Formats: sequence, structure tokens, C-alpha cells
Amino acid sequence: MRQSTFLVPTLRDIPSGADVISHQLMLRSGMIRQSAAGVYSFLPLGWKVLRKVEEIVREEMDLSGAQEMFMPSIQPSELWKDSGRWEAYGPELMRVTDRHSREFALGPTHEEVITSIVRDDVRSYKELPMTLYQIQTKFRDERRPRFGVLRGREFLMKDAYSFDLDFAGLDKSYQQMYDAYTKIFTRLNLNFRAVVADSGAMGGKDTHEFMVLSDVGEDTIAYSDESNFAANIEIAPVNVSYEKTNEEFQEMKEVETPDQRTIEEVSSFFETSPSKCIKSLLFIVDEKPVLLLVRGDHEANDIKLKHELDAESVELATSEQTQQIIGVSQGFVGPVHVPYEVQVYADPAVKSIVNGICGANTEKKHFINVNTERDFHVTAYADLRNIQEGDPSPDGKGKILFKEGIEVGHVFKLGTKYSEALGAQYLNDQGKAKPIVMGSYGVGVSRTVAAVIEEHHDDNGIVWPACVSPFDIHLIAINVKQSEQKKLAEMLYKQFQNDGYDVLYDDRPERAGVKFKDADLIGIPLRVQIGKRASENIVEVKDRKTGNVEELYIDDLSAFVKQYSRQ
Amino acid sequence: MRQSTFLVPTLRDIPSGADVISHQLMLRSGMIRQSAAGVYSFLPLGWKVLRKVEEIVREEMDLSGAQEMFMPSIQPSELWKDSGRWEAYGPELMRVTDRHSREFALGPTHEEVITSIVRDDVRSYKELPMTLYQIQTKFRDERRPRFGVLRGREFLMKDAYSFDLDFAGLDKSYQQMYDAYTKIFTRLNLNFRAVVADSGAMGGKDTHEFMVLSDVGEDTIAYSDESNFAANIEIAPVNVSYEKTNEEFQEMKEVETPDQRTIEEVSSFFETSPSKCIKSLLFIVDEKPVLLLVRGDHEANDIKLKHELDAESVELATSEQTQQIIGVSQGFVGPVHVPYEVQVYADPAVKSIVNGICGANTEKKHFINVNTERDFHVTAYADLRNIQEGDPSPDGKGKILFKEGIEVGHVFKLGTKYSEALGAQYLNDQGKAKPIVMGSYGVGVSRTVAAVIEEHHDDNGIVWPACVSPFDIHLIAINVKQSEQKKLAEMLYKQFQNDGYDVLYDDRPERAGVKFKDADLIGIPLRVQIGKRASENIVEVKDRKTGNVEELYIDDLSAFVKQYSRQ
Repeated sequence: MRQSTFLVPTLRDIPSGADVISHQLMLRSGMIRQSAAGVYSFLPLGWKVLRKVEEIVREEMDLSGAQEMFMPSIQPSELWKDSGRWEAYGPELMRVTDRHSREFALGPTHEEVITSIVRDDVRSYKELPMTLYQIQTKFRDERRPRFGVLRGREFLMKDAYSFDLDFAGLDKSYQQMYDAYTKIFTRLNLNFRAVVADSGAMGGKDTHEFMVLSDVGEDTIAYSDESNFAANIEIAPVNVSYEKTNEEFQEMKEVETPDQRTIEEVSSFFETSPSKCIKSLLFIVDEKPVLLLVRGDHEANDIKLKHELDAESVELATSEQTQQIIGVSQGFVGPVHVPYEVQVYADPAVKSIVNGICGANTEKKHFINVNTERDFHVTAYADLRNIQEGDPSPDGKGKILFKEGIEVGHVFKLGTKYSEALGAQYLNDQGKAKPIVMGSYGVGVSRTVAAVIEEHHDDNGIVWPACVSPFDIHLIAINVKQSEQKKLAEMLYKQFQNDGYDVLYDDRPERAGVKFKDADLIGIPLRVQIGKRASENIVEVKDRKTGNVEELYIDDLSAFVKQYSRQ
Repeated sequence: MRQSTFLVPTLRDIPSGADVISHQLMLRSGMIRQSAAGVYSFLPLGWKVLRKVEEIVREEMDLSGAQEMFMPSIQPSELWKDSGRWEAYGPELMRVTDRHSREFALGPTHEEVITSIVRDDVRSYKELPMTLYQIQTKFRDERRPRFGVLRGREFLMKDAYSFDLDFAGLDKSYQQMYDAYTKIFTRLNLNFRAVVADSGAMGGKDTHEFMVLSDVGEDTIAYSDESNFAANIEIAPVNVSYEKTNEEFQEMKEVETPDQRTIEEVSSFFETSPSKCIKSLLFIVDEKPVLLLVRGDHEANDIKLKHELDAESVELATSEQTQQIIGVSQGFVGPVHVPYEVQVYADPAVKSIVNGICGANTEKKHFINVNTERDFHVTAYADLRNIQEGDPSPDGKGKILFKEGIEVGHVFKLGTKYSEALGAQYLNDQGKAKPIVMGSYGVGVSRTVAAVIEEHHDDNGIVWPACVSPFDIHLIAINVKQSEQKKLAEMLYKQFQNDGYDVLYDDRPERAGVKFKDADLIGIPLRVQIGKRASENIVEVKDRKTGNVEELYIDDLSAFVKQYSRQ
């Protein structure tokens, strides 16, 4: 492709409003342009990369045995009402009304459509298992679209759905998808983890998010420095044994703490460590009061509390509720002498605190020398805190580190939620109708392009891994007005194309500096530069990643490029 | 792909509501399923075919030098208001409102988006010409979606846009697209014509519709039986010389015709041919009365009248208007003694009528022996009738035939309509700003799949041309319970795949009749059937098109298939 007429409008400056590096570089290298908030066009350069990512996803899906198909974006509201998602999805679901006043959803995912197709067209156990997928534009009206294509409102997604006879079959289909995703993100040179995630309100059981570890992202990932363990910090289990110190139990005393409410204020007032304090938080769990205790240097985790109590809703009590239930303001709540109806749940770390400090349930007072069991009763101990950096990894291998994560994939065991709601059944070998057991699996294709850039760039621009580079070779005629350079460049352009390479040929009448800057920005791994030594049949080859430049006789060029592209 | 777990739900019966053969066969062969009126899912078999058509379109676009990109479906209403299409497009444009009450169009085409991108990112004449394209889902809220994917509300389309310095450049870009389309539809084995079409209200000049000649369709095409000439009958020029007969002029007489209003009634009353009658139709053209005369056996063409008079609006006069202007009811209007303000336009055929018949402008009376010039004045003669079957082709080669047409492509010179509305300019070599000259070019990709089926089927099902067949080979184990058949089939399945063929392998425990019926319906060109002679290492190969069956030793199979697929 001749760069002179190729639509690749590079920008020197960082466009305003682009806060993360991938967004900046996609705009600056002319890969994308914005049409509206969260709505982007992929210009030819960006589209070439997107297609390469798409093709890797497609190859691995096909190898896994999944069947490609294509469903409509416009989905009848009736299907969504049957599944209950028409109400549940809220304003993120874009809705459209046709000329006959019929309502439709603009598909954010396709569980309803695919389940209705399988319901109508699959009859017998003999036709299962089956996994279907598509690569398609999706719509989600994000409240706050940002970070370019990392969180857009219209984006390309691969979504797959598995259909099995039973849960054992689902486990197998799930594992196949999990393995395919591992291959995809490995091929894409991404530093990712399959993160145990919270299944939330989706009703399923197992779920993993494939997270690219990154400096940006909307989730924090706890991962092991020595193993594959990774989990969203919200649900990463804490697996630590705490031991009490040998310290002797002292007498519990009430102390005036007129201005000390936070753990920091209290520990500093008593000149001790936050780990000596018992953090006491009152929650309303399914309308009942629950006091949650964690060690002062730990963070309470309400999702774990919700799971522990198998609750529908968990909310931190308001000031008013705290006054009403405990009779004190929030900074002075503690576990000693709580009203009978308040259940007390504590993280195991609390048990190991000897002569600790806690709120006295009296205004402007704390107790010191508090000891569990002697001074207060705990209904039950459970893992109720966030994991922290430096904690041992729950799998026993290595220590925990934190990193932001970009969710590029998600695998999910749906079970029979949709098949029961929409009536998708099969007849088993005894002729009995059974609900089909489903899984659902997504890859954010456009988002993945941004994730690759987040991981593969330097100060000068993008550094594409070869597998998704928009071109194989960037051929640069440094001075097209110099006829020998021009002639040699044109000759090599034809030769590379004949050899089957996809070449971006910078034939523009621009200065060398402009061309090099653009080339760095665009980030094609191998650059061939034709300059002053063209008359001697010598060219330069430059590796975008290392910056290494080598001079070569053109007779050696073909072998060099062949060797390079095999790496 | 093993047919046992491949989602290809064939149907024995013709589904209700499917009126055309392609719609029936796409449903029956399990290619598509409907989600809502005009909204379809492509199941795996249909998707494979759609992808093959898409790939042929892409290859020819790339060869033509066009650059692929990808624009969003969601388009800000502001852009559409700038172009004037927000109002003009009417209810066919699907509109969606986001959570912040901003309005968007769901793209039916992308002139606005692409023009805004080029406006913002192209500066200099050095960057042009440029043609950009995408292959993308489009939305159009048809009042009456029908014929399956032939007229859907959500469909796959290739749309391209050319950007040139001037109209001479546009002519070149247009021709490149025209040539690429010719290659595409030729490769797809379609009997098509590039039809001169009416540019309508789009404001452009040249436009061609690529029409597949067919038994169904929404337009009638006049085409030559000996040349490439083809045009929509609405605008096909008539190029006929008429000669007067030697008959002597008779005296004009008024005759009572109490119940004779139509040409048929009048000619039968006078026991003569309709070609002796002068059909006289009163039109209101831009608020002025115009009497249009054509020969009784011809059809008047109001589009030609509109072009002839360079008019904005042409409407047939109502009964009331006719009474008011001519003072007679519609069946008795004629050119003799029309009021002075009525202009009379006539088709040349009228001039050759000797001693003709026409309405007398008096209730229940006709004139006989009417002769032009002697009895009435004609303001001007012009081609004002529809072309007819049997007319000479306007290019002088062959005779005209009619056929229905399916519009699969459309090329269109837009000129500066969008670039001026949206301010897309370039600086010429004197630094002066000029509007970019545009063209727009579409291929209905999903519609083309249906058009191929309309042309390539027989009573038993689809007969795919090899280039778009969903698989290369349909391998059928006639009785999978017979272990020798099964074993040989499995062996050949592996072997074909290793040789690089895409194989559909019917491994289902079904009866032979069911398998053959399904295979005919699905229509893969080459079938390999493993039956009773498996033990002798003999299989059958069957050509779907001719129905020819041949027995082969498996040792000869590989060479046969290789030879077959080269055809």
C-alpha cells in the first residue's frame, strides 16, 4: 500500500480527552476516529489490526470445534421479556422502536436469540453437544464510555454459547473454551491471567475473566508472583494463619477519645499499630443488622460477607441506622456489649489480636485491652477481608501482587437459566424432555487491540507483535526526489509484494524526520529504509522493538526478511 | 464437519410465508432462521456461503485499490441533519436515543460518516484520489420486508465511497468500481446486467444498478437479446422510426361513444387496432396542465415527461382537475381543440397515425379520422413512452426482452452533494479550497446469496456454484451401522481434510433417503457416497448439477476430486 494515498492520518500531539496510552496511540497513529462518545470508526490501519485479532480468535474457535454463525443486532423485546433481561438490563441496553411501534433490543449479547434458535431446531440428545459462536458488533450504552475502544458503546465482540446434555458436559465445553482463550491470548503476546470472578446476579456458577495485567483497567487483580493464581481482589480468598502473641491479657478499660474516629486516628492516639485495632462496621444484611470485624490494617469485603450469609443484599448501615441500632455514632462502634439482635462476624485475623482496641459503643470513647471470647462473642469467623499485596498466594505458591486488569475475555457457566426461561429442551435417550445446559463465552475483540497496545509500546509509539501488525514490512524511501532512492524503493516494493509480503510503502514527498516519526508511531516490526547508499545497492533494516539498524546489500535482503519473519 | 452435530436443521416442507424459491430453500436447507419480520440469523451453513460471497467482494475491492475500513452503525443525528437526510429519509431510517437523550441513526449507508472523516483528515490534493469501503451490517426499516434476505431490515452490505479532485477523476473512480462489480458478479456465476437507472432525488448524474435477471424482483428490466444493453423499463430510451401508411387523409368526424372510455373499448367499438388510437393523458406538471399523447398500444412514461420538461413534479390530473381544465371526464379527453393554456407533448409514434381516433373533449364522443398537424397542434415530440418487448434495442443490436431484476449492486456519482453539505474540501496545487467530488457504491451481500440461489437451483434444492459452496465435498456414509462403510467414510473424512478440502461428513444414523434428500437440498457440487461396495473399496461420486453418478476405486478418488475441483 502506498502511504501517499493510504488514509493513515497521524497526529503529532496527544489529542485532548485521551487519558490512556492505547487511546492516545490509536488516535495518533490514525487507527481510529471518534464519531460520538464511545463510538469509533476503524480507519484502514486500525481495521487491518482488528481483522488480524479477529482471525486469530476465529482460528482458535474453529479448532475448538465451535461453529460460526451470525445473529441479528435487532432482537425482539419479547425474547428479552421471556428471559427477564428486558427489565433487568437497565439503561445500558439500547432499545429501538420500529415503524410499527414494535420494540427491539440492540444486542449487547445474544443468549436469548441463540437459545430460541436452539429451542426451535434442536430436538434430540444425539445433536448435542454443540458450541456456536459469532464475531459481531455489539451495543452497550455505557454510562461513562472512556479509554477509547477499551470501554465503548459500539464494539466488536466474539460471543459463543455452548449447549450440553448435563452439567458434566458443560464442564467439558467450558474447559474447551477456557483452553481456546488461553491459546488466543498467548498467541497475542499478552500478559494475562484467567481470573476467578464473581458470578454476580447472572445465576451461574463458575466464571473466569481473562484479564490482561496492565497499568490501566477498571479492576484490580491479585495475582501470584510465582504461580498462575489470579483473582479479582473483590473475591480473592485469603489463606493466612494468624498466631497470637505471647502478650498477657490486660484488663479492658474505657478511654476517652474525643476526636478519634478512624483507625488511623485511634492507633496514632494510642501510639500503636493499626493491626492492634478491631475495625467494626455495621451492615444491614437482608434487613438484619450484622457487625463485621476485621483487623485495623485490613479492608472489609462485603461481597465475601454476602456469600458467607448467602444474602440477597448487603448495605453498609447509614449514620441514622447505626444510631438507631447501636445507639452511637459510626466512629465509636465496637463488638463489646452490642445489642442482642446484632450478629457479629469476624475475619480470623481478629482472633489473633491480643489486648486490642475498639469502639466502646459509647460516644467519644474506645476500649483498650480488648480480647475476643473474653470480652465479646463472635457468631462466626470467616474470610471476610480483601486480600493484600504481600499476602501468601491462596494456592500456597508465591506472594500476592496487585495490578490493574483489562478484561478481554469472560467464560461463564450459565446452567439452565436461559433454557428454562425460553423452554429450550432436548429429548434424552428415554424420550424424556430435559433442559439444555448452557455456557456463554465472550472475547472483546476491539478492546483486545487496545490491550495489545497497552502492553506493546514505547515512548515513540506502538511496537506491534508480528502476528497482529498491520503490515509485514514498512518500506521507506527517505528522499523520493532522489531518483536512485525512488527507483530502488519502487523495485523493492514490487519485489516484496511478489514474495507475498504485505508492505506499507512510504512514497510521500516528506522529510526524513516526519517519515521516521510516523513509522515509529505506526509500529510495524520491520523497517526497510532506502537512503543515500541506494546507489551502492545498500539499504538499512531497522527493528522497531530494539531500534537496531543494520546495513545490507539488497542481494541479502530477501534472505534477511525471510529469516526475520520466521522469528 | 460432522453433520450429526452441525447445526443444519433441514425442513421437508415449504415454510408458510416463504413466497420465493430462494427464501424457501434458505429456510429448508437450514441456512437462515427468522427472528422478526425482515430480521434473520445466518446459521452455520448460510454463514459459510455469506462469508464466501463477502470474500469475493473483498478481493475485488482490494484489487481495485480501495481501502477497507469499518465505521459505526450508530451515527450522530447532527451529521444527518447537516446532509439533510435526517428529515428526507423518512421512516425507513431506524433511529435510537441514548441514555442522555441524544439521537442517532442506525446506519443504512455511511455517506455522512465517511465524509466527516475525510473532511477532518484529508487536506491536500496530494492525498487524493482515494476509495474507502467497508463490509458491514446495515439497517433499513422497510415498510414491507419480504422475500427473506432479498428485502430485509438488517442485512450485510459492502459500501464504498470515492473521493476525487474533480469530475474527471470521479469518472475514473466510477469506472473502476463498475469494472470491479462486473468481475464480482461474473465470478459469482450470475446472469446480470449493469442497468442504466434513474438517479432520482439523489442529485447525482450517472448511476447504474447491477441487476440479476430473474423470475422474481421488484423492477422490470428491458434488455437486449443480442447485446449488453439493459435499463429499467422506466427509463429505457425508445429508438424506433415510425412510418406513416399510404392511406389517404379522411374527413374528421365526431362519433357518439356512450360507453367507450378505454383504448380497448374504443378500438373494439370501431373495429380497429389500438395502434390507431391516440391515448391522451392530462398531467399536472409543476402546477401547469400538460396533455401527453402516446399511441394506443403504448404506455405513457411520466418519468420521461419529467425529464423532458425538467420538472420538479409530475402528477396525473384527477377527474376534478380534468373537468376543470378541459371540461370533460377523463375517458373523452383528446388533443383537438384543447384550451390554449394546455401544452401538448407527444411521442413520435403519434405522428405516424393516419386517420386516428381520439377523445372529442365532449362528453361521450370521440373523433375519428384525426391527423396530427392538420387537426391539432403538438408543442413538441419526444420519447415519452415505455419501451416494449419486441422493440429494437436502443443500441441497435437485437430486440428488447423483459425480465424481473434483483438489484445486487449500485454505483452512483454523488458529485459534491455531501462534500458541500459537510464542508469536505481539499487544497489544490495553488492552495485554493475545492469541494471533494464523491461517488458511492453498494453491493447487497446477503441479498446476493439469495440471488445466486434464484439462479442456481432445481426442483430438489440448491445447486451451488463451486466458488460459493459452503463445503467442497459432501461425504455420505449411507449406512453408518455397517462397520465397513463407517470405517471407510471415517478414513476418507480424514484424508480429504488432510488434502485441504472442506468436507461436510454425513455421519448421522439416518436412512439413505433422508440423507440424499438433505444433500440435494444443501446442494454441495460434489458428493462422495460410501455404500454397499465399501468392502470392495468402491465408492460413488455424484455431480449435484448433472446428477451423474460414477463408481470409483478409492485409489482413483484423490485424482478425481483434484480434477473436479479445478473445473
